[in-house]
Amino acid sequence: MEIGIVGLGLIGGSLGLDLKALGFRVYGVSRKPETCRRAVELQIADQASPDLDLLKDTEAIFVCTPLAAIASTLEQLTPFLAPETIITDVGSVKQSIVTECSQLWANFVGGHPMAGSAEQGIEAAQKDLFRGSAYVLTPTANTPQQSLAKVREIALKLGSRIYLSSPEDHDQAVAWISHLPVMISAGLIDACMGEDNPDILSLAQKLASSGFRDTSRVGGGNPELGLMMAKYNREKILRSLQNYRLSLDKITKYIEEQRWKDLEQILKNTRDNKPKFLH
Amino acid sequence: MEIGIVGLGLIGGSLGLDLKALGFRVYGVSRKPETCRRAVELQIADQASPDLDLLKDTEAIFVCTPLAAIASTLEQLTPFLAPETIITDVGSVKQSIVTECSQLWANFVGGHPMAGSAEQGIEAAQKDLFRGSAYVLTPTANTPQQSLAKVREIALKLGSRIYLSSPEDHDQAVAWISHLPVMISAGLIDACMGEDNPDILSLAQKLASSGFRDTSRVGGGNPELGLMMAKYNREKILRSLQNYRLSLDKITKYIEEQRWKDLEQILKNTRDNKPKFLH
Repeated sequence: MEIGIVGLGLIGGSLGLDLKALGFRVYGVSRKPETCRRAVELQIADQASPDLDLLKDTEAIFVCTPLAAIASTLEQLTPFLAPETIITDVGSVKQSIVTECSQLWANFVGGHPMAGSAEQGIEAAQKDLFRGSAYVLTPTANTPQQSLAKVREIALKLGSRIYLSSPEDHDQAVAWISHLPVMISAGLIDACMGEDNPDILSLAQKLASSGFRDTSRVGGGNPELGLMMAKYNREKILRSLQNYRLSLDKITKYIEEQRWKDLEQILKNTRDNKPKFLH
Repeated sequence: MEIGIVGLGLIGGSLGLDLKALGFRVYGVSRKPETCRRAVELQIADQASPDLDLLKDTEAIFVCTPLAAIASTLEQLTPFLAPETIITDVGSVKQSIVTECSQLWANFVGGHPMAGSAEQGIEAAQKDLFRGSAYVLTPTANTPQQSLAKVREIALKLGSRIYLSSPEDHDQAVAWISHLPVMISAGLIDACMGEDNPDILSLAQKLASSGFRDTSRVGGGNPELGLMMAKYNREKILRSLQNYRLSLDKITKYIEEQRWKDLEQILKNTRDNKPKFLH
């Protein structure tokens, strides 16, 4: 089977490594000729080119560009593809992408492999990046069943745990467990830096240890990623933020009013509920 | 030098291990006779007893009980101590403890070794727990300089990084980097569990990965510890929570109003500021 990959960064590159190792013939496209050269060198693709034309005879194409470039990539791709060619993407937000891309290409299957690394770019590509990770597929009523089955089969071969979900439910779920954490974690750093007593700020910076490190980690990450989440999943992030604020206000009220039994109950519940979230 | 330790849990036990290894003679006190037996067995103390009387001839006493028992321990100890005996504590909140304990014993030095582990109790005691960690000493204008110097010298021998601070500044600094993270992290778990669509909650629980794990870690910890922080550092935690809410409201507003440049600027600042917090 011949597979195309557009965008040869961490995700596209890692996908290429695995697919080639699985025996697929892989065609890679990147805007940069140097990245194309490295893709062949690193065994990420059998052939690579800046020209989307390279993919015209592939059976399935993974669009692994940033969110903002997915739809425009489809616009450039579709004029020369056969209608049976499957296009799938790896974007971390699905509702807007799936709506737009399904209109551009009937044979579109929305996907979100939930793997990553702090590193970016083709040099960060690694084998087995998707093994054991969640891979969400987000079909709609119009998604061709056979194409869904084909993408599912490929994702299974990568060793991923497959979940099917509507684009809407996917976006709200990732708002809770991925996008909201970024915002509340960024808020922690922002609030600490707002301490107006320089002695206290300086001491806080020296005393910060594992609790602060972990809680602030995703808020200190790549700003472009955080911005994309907010732009593309705005409505769902806002819903999560508003509900989060109610939780925070409840905790604050209990401390203010010294309702210690109520605070203890929340903390017991959070301790008991945390293990229900896989990771 | 003869040193007493009251409370032989993780902190008191680990302190005993290091002090004995450094050549101090260590006397341990725990309410439970079984813990006293283990303390001698594990080389945490040379002698141990449930009776505070054991400490009457020591030069310095580390009170390593939970916060709620520090002052009452001093009340029981002080009647039979020589006035030159130094008492220090290891409580994670200092203002209320230092105020109360300085009245009970003039020769009191507030301290907070910022080391820990997920485990508790004497069996979790470990050598070198304090090596490389911060150890804050919180003298007041009335703290005898010689006693402060002595406690500082012992803490240095443990391999700690020593910081001096007022009790007030210490409490606000730890509210920022230790207590606030617990509350905002607990709020994350609480808010997620409040999702009223069971399909979304179930999917969120399956998709949660490292970002959620890290941001929710301290909010899923020991409820008694979280409750103690809130009770003993109530005023400072409330100040941090109120300022945190302003940061969160600002982020929410920028997303609501699609002020993407402003949101990007916050996320760039948090990325740049995060490394200023040691850990």
